Amino acid sequence: MSKIICVGLGPGDPELMSVRADRLISNASTVAYFRKAGRKGQARQIVEGMLSSDVVEIPMEYPVTTEIPVKDQGYNDLLAQFYEEKTTLLLEHCQGQDQDIIVLCEGDPFFYGSFMHLYVRLREHIEIEVVPGITGMSGCWTATGIPMTWGDDILTVLMGTLPEDRLLAGMQNTDAFVVMKTGRNLPKIRQALQESNRLSDAWIVSYGTMAKEEIMPLSSYEKETAPYFTIILVHGKGRRPQ
Amino acid sequence: MSKIICVGLGPGDPELMSVRADRLISNASTVAYFRKAGRKGQARQIVEGMLSSDVVEIPMEYPVTTEIPVKDQGYNDLLAQFYEEKTTLLLEHCQGQDQDIIVLCEGDPFFYGSFMHLYVRLREHIEIEVVPGITGMSGCWTATGIPMTWGDDILTVLMGTLPEDRLLAGMQNTDAFVVMKTGRNLPKIRQALQESNRLSDAWIVSYGTMAKEEIMPLSSYEKETAPYFTIILVHGKGRRPQ
Repeated sequence: MSKIICVGLGPGDPELMSVRADRLISNASTVAYFRKAGRKGQARQIVEGMLSSDVVEIPMEYPVTTEIPVKDQGYNDLLAQFYEEKTTLLLEHCQGQDQDIIVLCEGDPFFYGSFMHLYVRLREHIEIEVVPGITGMSGCWTATGIPMTWGDDILTVLMGTLPEDRLLAGMQNTDAFVVMKTGRNLPKIRQALQESNRLSDAWIVSYGTMAKEEIMPLSSYEKETAPYFTIILVHGKGRRPQ
Repeated sequence: MSKIICVGLGPGDPELMSVRADRLISNASTVAYFRKAGRKGQARQIVEGMLSSDVVEIPMEYPVTTEIPVKDQGYNDLLAQFYEEKTTLLLEHCQGQDQDIIVLCEGDPFFYGSFMHLYVRLREHIEIEVVPGITGMSGCWTATGIPMTWGDDILTVLMGTLPEDRLLAGMQNTDAFVVMKTGRNLPKIRQALQESNRLSDAWIVSYGTMAKEEIMPLSSYEKETAPYFTIILVHGKGRRPQ
């Protein structure tokens, strides 16, 4: 019986995937990956040129992404059904095979990754291995050229989808922080940064480590919203020998 | 003029370093790394067998680690002098050379890494490149086999060196969290976990991804203290389609 190996691809630059990821992907007979319908998909794009010519590809297309509000029961039902279907699909592919399926995931799979939804459904039925990856946020803070956390600094990771009061509390109770899932939530994030007095220290990084990488102090960023692959970050200033 | 490239080695398993790190280290003519006096050093150990036979090695031995209290002015002075000396040493090595110096760092260099202290001293004098790595915490949460953060979960990274009230507040205001720098701080961390009602959800991971990896619920861990490479973590349970 084959197994499923979920491989973290890192922040976007193919050279930033792990040696193990590189080996598994180059030797893969079957790869699966999530993507938005009608797109090539970020995970698939990262491995462009690495796959063998006779690889079997299993794109798993999200039924919805941003069209339906997250709190809607219809959103929940659609996604639950989607993950159930893909669980069945991957299990069928593994039946009677001895070749592992490699699932490609951006970043680090257990850190807000979509694969986790398949993982909890698959793990009772089949052996699964997960290969960690460099997180998008590590790629982004490295790209700013400023160290992120020092000494006893507390680091908090916030999602731009949180209500403004939770964003504000998170920013107030920490030294360094990262806000992910930025996109259309940027005005709300800006407001929380302003109220927590952290706006002037904030950086915006879009497409960190990728070809279209863009980095600047948030105060210089004039657009109202940002691309999906955007992170806001405030560096720590903690203890260090002077 | 040569440059300095700081390379994140990831959590410990050599296969978890990036493809770029692997290439840079295998081709290095000079490598530098931190270590405790009298030890081989964790960073050096990870690259065992990867270095060319005529590589020049620059071990940088900490003058103190845990022997002097962190808040002591003597600790500050010793470390500041150490970082100044190593800055000068690395710059001298680069003079008139065209071979880059590769500095080896465990984990992700800009995430609580010692290299940051050299980075801020070196950056006015020489070109520096930093290659991000998989953090120790990613290696540890992957090793538990349980996804770390879902949906809108807030993740907080705490240092075991913090006072107990700050640890407690950090644990109370978050969904998922990680406590690093555990070691002799374990009794204090346990106390904060107890008071924040998170003790029964806590896991302890020592030497994550390394040969002597040890993982268990913290409630099953009976020793009073833990090895230096130990992380305590509590997984998030956030939004997911059911």
